[in-house]
Amino acid sequence: MAGSILRSFAGVFPYLVSPIGTDGTVLETPLRALCEHLIGAGVHGLTPLGSTGEFAYLNAAQRREIVRITVEQTAGRVPVIAGVAATTTADAVAQARDYAGLGADGILALMEAYFPIAEAGVVDYFTAVANATGLPVVLYTNPNFQRSDLSLPAIEALSRPPHIVAIKDASTNTGRLLSILNRVEGRLDVFAASAHIPAAVMLIGGVGWMAGPACIIPAQSVRLYDLCRAGDWAAALPLQRRLWRMNELFAAHSLAACIKGALQMQGFAVGDPLPPQAPLSPSGREAVAAALASLAPGEAG
Amino acid sequence: MAGSILRSFAGVFPYLVSPIGTDGTVLETPLRALCEHLIGAGVHGLTPLGSTGEFAYLNAAQRREIVRITVEQTAGRVPVIAGVAATTTADAVAQARDYAGLGADGILALMEAYFPIAEAGVVDYFTAVANATGLPVVLYTNPNFQRSDLSLPAIEALSRPPHIVAIKDASTNTGRLLSILNRVEGRLDVFAASAHIPAAVMLIGGVGWMAGPACIIPAQSVRLYDLCRAGDWAAALPLQRRLWRMNELFAAHSLAACIKGALQMQGFAVGDPLPPQAPLSPSGREAVAAALASLAPGEAG
Amino acid sequence: MAGSILRSFAGVFPYLVSPIGTDGTVLETPLRALCEHLIGAGVHGLTPLGSTGEFAYLNAAQRREIVRITVEQTAGRVPVIAGVAATTTADAVAQARDYAGLGADGILALMEAYFPIAEAGVVDYFTAVANATGLPVVLYTNPNFQRSDLSLPAIEALSRPPHIVAIKDASTNTGRLLSILNRVEGRLDVFAASAHIPAAVMLIGGVGWMAGPACIIPAQSVRLYDLCRAGDWAAALPLQRRLWRMNELFAAHSLAACIKGALQMQGFAVGDPLPPQAPLSPSGREAVAAALASLAPGEAG
Amino acid sequence: MAGSILRSFAGVFPYLVSPIGTDGTVLETPLRALCEHLIGAGVHGLTPLGSTGEFAYLNAAQRREIVRITVEQTAGRVPVIAGVAATTTADAVAQARDYAGLGADGILALMEAYFPIAEAGVVDYFTAVANATGLPVVLYTNPNFQRSDLSLPAIEALSRPPHIVAIKDASTNTGRLLSILNRVEGRLDVFAASAHIPAAVMLIGGVGWMAGPACIIPAQSVRLYDLCRAGDWAAALPLQRRLWRMNELFAAHSLAACIKGALQMQGFAVGDPLPPQAPLSPSGREAVAAALASLAPGEAG
Repeated sequence: MAGSILRSFAGVFPYLVSPIGTDGTVLETPLRALCEHLIGAGVHGLTPLGSTGEFAYLNAAQRREIVRITVEQTAGRVPVIAGVAATTTADAVAQARDYAGLGADGILALMEAYFPIAEAGVVDYFTAVANATGLPVVLYTNPNFQRSDLSLPAIEALSRPPHIVAIKDASTNTGRLLSILNRVEGRLDVFAASAHIPAAVMLIGGVGWMAGPACIIPAQSVRLYDLCRAGDWAAALPLQRRLWRMNELFAAHSLAACIKGALQMQGFAVGDPLPPQAPLSPSGREAVAAALASLAPGEAG
Repeated sequence: MAGSILRSFAGVFPYLVSPIGTDGTVLETPLRALCEHLIGAGVHGLTPLGSTGEFAYLNAAQRREIVRITVEQTAGRVPVIAGVAATTTADAVAQARDYAGLGADGILALMEAYFPIAEAGVVDYFTAVANATGLPVVLYTNPNFQRSDLSLPAIEALSRPPHIVAIKDASTNTGRLLSILNRVEGRLDVFAASAHIPAAVMLIGGVGWMAGPACIIPAQSVRLYDLCRAGDWAAALPLQRRLWRMNELFAAHSLAACIKGALQMQGFAVGDPLPPQAPLSPSGREAVAAALASLAPGEAG
Repeated sequence: MAGSILRSFAGVFPYLVSPIGTDGTVLETPLRALCEHLIGAGVHGLTPLGSTGEFAYLNAAQRREIVRITVEQTAGRVPVIAGVAATTTADAVAQARDYAGLGADGILALMEAYFPIAEAGVVDYFTAVANATGLPVVLYTNPNFQRSDLSLPAIEALSRPPHIVAIKDASTNTGRLLSILNRVEGRLDVFAASAHIPAAVMLIGGVGWMAGPACIIPAQSVRLYDLCRAGDWAAALPLQRRLWRMNELFAAHSLAACIKGALQMQGFAVGDPLPPQAPLSPSGREAVAAALASLAPGEAG
Repeated sequence: MAGSILRSFAGVFPYLVSPIGTDGTVLETPLRALCEHLIGAGVHGLTPLGSTGEFAYLNAAQRREIVRITVEQTAGRVPVIAGVAATTTADAVAQARDYAGLGADGILALMEAYFPIAEAGVVDYFTAVANATGLPVVLYTNPNFQRSDLSLPAIEALSRPPHIVAIKDASTNTGRLLSILNRVEGRLDVFAASAHIPAAVMLIGGVGWMAGPACIIPAQSVRLYDLCRAGDWAAALPLQRRLWRMNELFAAHSLAACIKGALQMQGFAVGDPLPPQAPLSPSGREAVAAALASLAPGEAG
């Protein structure tokens, strides 16, 4: 039943990359292999079509295919929270219904904007997405790349519809997460993003993180999560400090290029970001390789 | 032949709104009526799918339909420059080819971005659009709403491909236009946008303007253009000062809401902006109505 | 000796307000009373002439008088770290020497800028301040109000001079603090500011915080610090969540107005911010009063 | 009488650099020589202590000395409009009175801010400066470097006090100048700044410009002004396009460094900007030298 599904949204949810061939076809084999690998490493869920998933660079058919394959390969072992992103309410509602029909377990909802949108319009948009299906919805706000942000009053308003269960804030402002937690009084769970320190967000009451780096260091991410959950901060912090290096790389390079490049090094033929995005630069590859080596499970343990 | 087509890109090019019904269908009748009205008022071209045309809120089918109807209704009387906007090179090229096939006379090319794109990627994107068809291309840069801008070196590089014939800069920085004119040494024409003073841009060497307000004051805009072209600055300036009021309203309210609301007052049933965009507010309607009254052809003449 | 002085920079350092009469004279009595009150509440040091201290609104004589009185009243019971802020290197060096002569125990150094300054110039500025006296120096970077920021490479360079012992970062980006800690490898201590969650910064390795709110909730701040130092996160977090309300108010209102208004409510006649800054608004006073009531030592304990 | 003084604020007003020796003393000889040179070239007034004059890097004594020398050397041949800049109303009023006592003919008033200041406070600040002396006041707003900007309603309010006679807007938004002109209905004159195209501002009703580049190309600037005043736009524009190169350099390099470096090439030993500002870089010197050569009176004529 719904309650138990909602409970299950906690832990490490890697943002999946979207492997696309140079002719625009979705590369099914590496996507399935990546899902298997991550589930095998113990992640608590999968999130296709986040920022790292290049949703903004995919057409409707490509997006749908990514969700379809991810849900099918996951086969219910962990929840799949599919990203819905649109400029119009109508498009967002259509996407949410489509992904629900494909078997997604939740919706990660974000709003794209070209013109500034009044707050009432923003609240209407997310409410419509929440009402579109019976699925739990995670709000996603990323002021670095989107042209809109969710104000605290808007977040408070959006904490009321029962289907909206969590928020993932991808600002760099960790204090804002504590303000959200104080405001919503348990009605929304809070997930960290790659710009926040996961352990710090867990300390203040977060339930996990949705982030691109977990794609390439899944086992270490799960270990960090387990230590935080157990309140073993003394053990968590040294690991967190080492893993932070990957978040720094992620911020210094283009998200999709960084994760796709790292996955290629790990043997997943996920291709490059869609042009005109550039693939990971040679210096970026070198930095990522060095970071991966230093964070190998044996090293970072 | 191509040369004569390129020559014809000068003058007043209104940005058409995109009339869309609440069920998502393109409202053909008011779009055709608007085209007739504007051509009758003497405008020098039509520009569907600019910012005012809500391109960012339309799906591929709606965009295509807007171009198809505009080209068909215009029937070659003035050039139609269709807006192409995408995050990926592949999508932009496909749009350009499609609109060329529909009979557009030129392409207004802009690049959308979610992640920052390196300059080489930006130049590649526009070059690919320029090479996609035999049509002349107008570059369009709008740093207020887009996440990218064209640097002066990028503009200089893009002034070399023969199909790229003009640039429309929608920043508020008029000095930048003079820098562009000095840099490109005649290889690109420069159009003003609604954030620039058209008469000032004409003074420094511009060839006209592409702007939303020309949709609702087409005759007065053409009159201003004719005075500027004739070098009759003493007559142009008083008119420019009066018309500027409309540009100010346009900046204070949402572009599409403002122009759609004004057109409704003028009898064109173009509908409202697509949700979650809001329609023109009551105070906005009042301000627009007052401005229209003060700028009636008899008044502003 | 120097080593022991450096060690002592840890804990809660309230940013003192600067009480100034309407005729421009420094109000000595409330400043002395405030110092007594804070030392009595157990704070670990005092910091005159931070942002909250309105350094940007004081002339040289007023600044000097604030430092003189604070040092004299403190009488060595806790360290006094005096704020040095200037646009020119010469002025900063002169201030640092002057405050050293007055008996300050450390320098909180920030750089003001009107034009952008190249990184080499920024490093030169802080290095000159560090070399100006024998006092330990705390770097202070506040990108919200200053026109400059310290890059990670600049911070790494500035971690080398022996007199530079700590950094206080007043951005809202807590992840940046972890990046700094990873970079400087123990050569700089890190203090939180009011825009960071103090407990989260303590978790990742911070040594305390320098902040305006500690002026009005000193005992509760010290209690939180002690819990964090003891690693008693289970007890620290509920207190942190309650105290965060004060940081939120502080961010919503003007810093100086907020703290001066709150201190007036607590019986310290510190006056209002210097015009054209406005005093705390009636609604601000109401919000601050409510927050103070809810955070009274008995309540928040 | 006052009326005639107010009338005289039109034309080209170079922003003077502030020649300061490495020991902090004002270099009187080159400052006097520069004043002579500019007056001899036909400029309509002198403006010490603008942005180019590094007011933000000078102490009170240095500022005063710059004004004293400029007024004395000018000896009434052209008006001297002295820059007043402060964070507090009290300091601004004191500066204005002091400069009036030194014989300045007008005040160029700007407000510095560290914290955001409410609009009522901003209006109070400028009104107090205007009421401080009998001198005419020019408002100066530079949103690029200051932390405040004047809104159109604030400008309209400030157009009412009789002593406030003009505004110099240093944004890059030329359309804003037309909005100001339409709003203030003749109660304020408008000066361009180096980020605007002077000829374009003259076209829309401006009365001249206050700008750093006029320090190094005074004769050519006066020639451009005369052509604009005469309405000879056909002759003005080619000259404007050539002179614009200097404004571009000015924007690409630090203002003070650029003008001081150029003046050194012209034989004025004005020294370098105050540290930690850097002197003009070698590549900057090369670019400035090339621009000066191409704009020599014989060349640009």
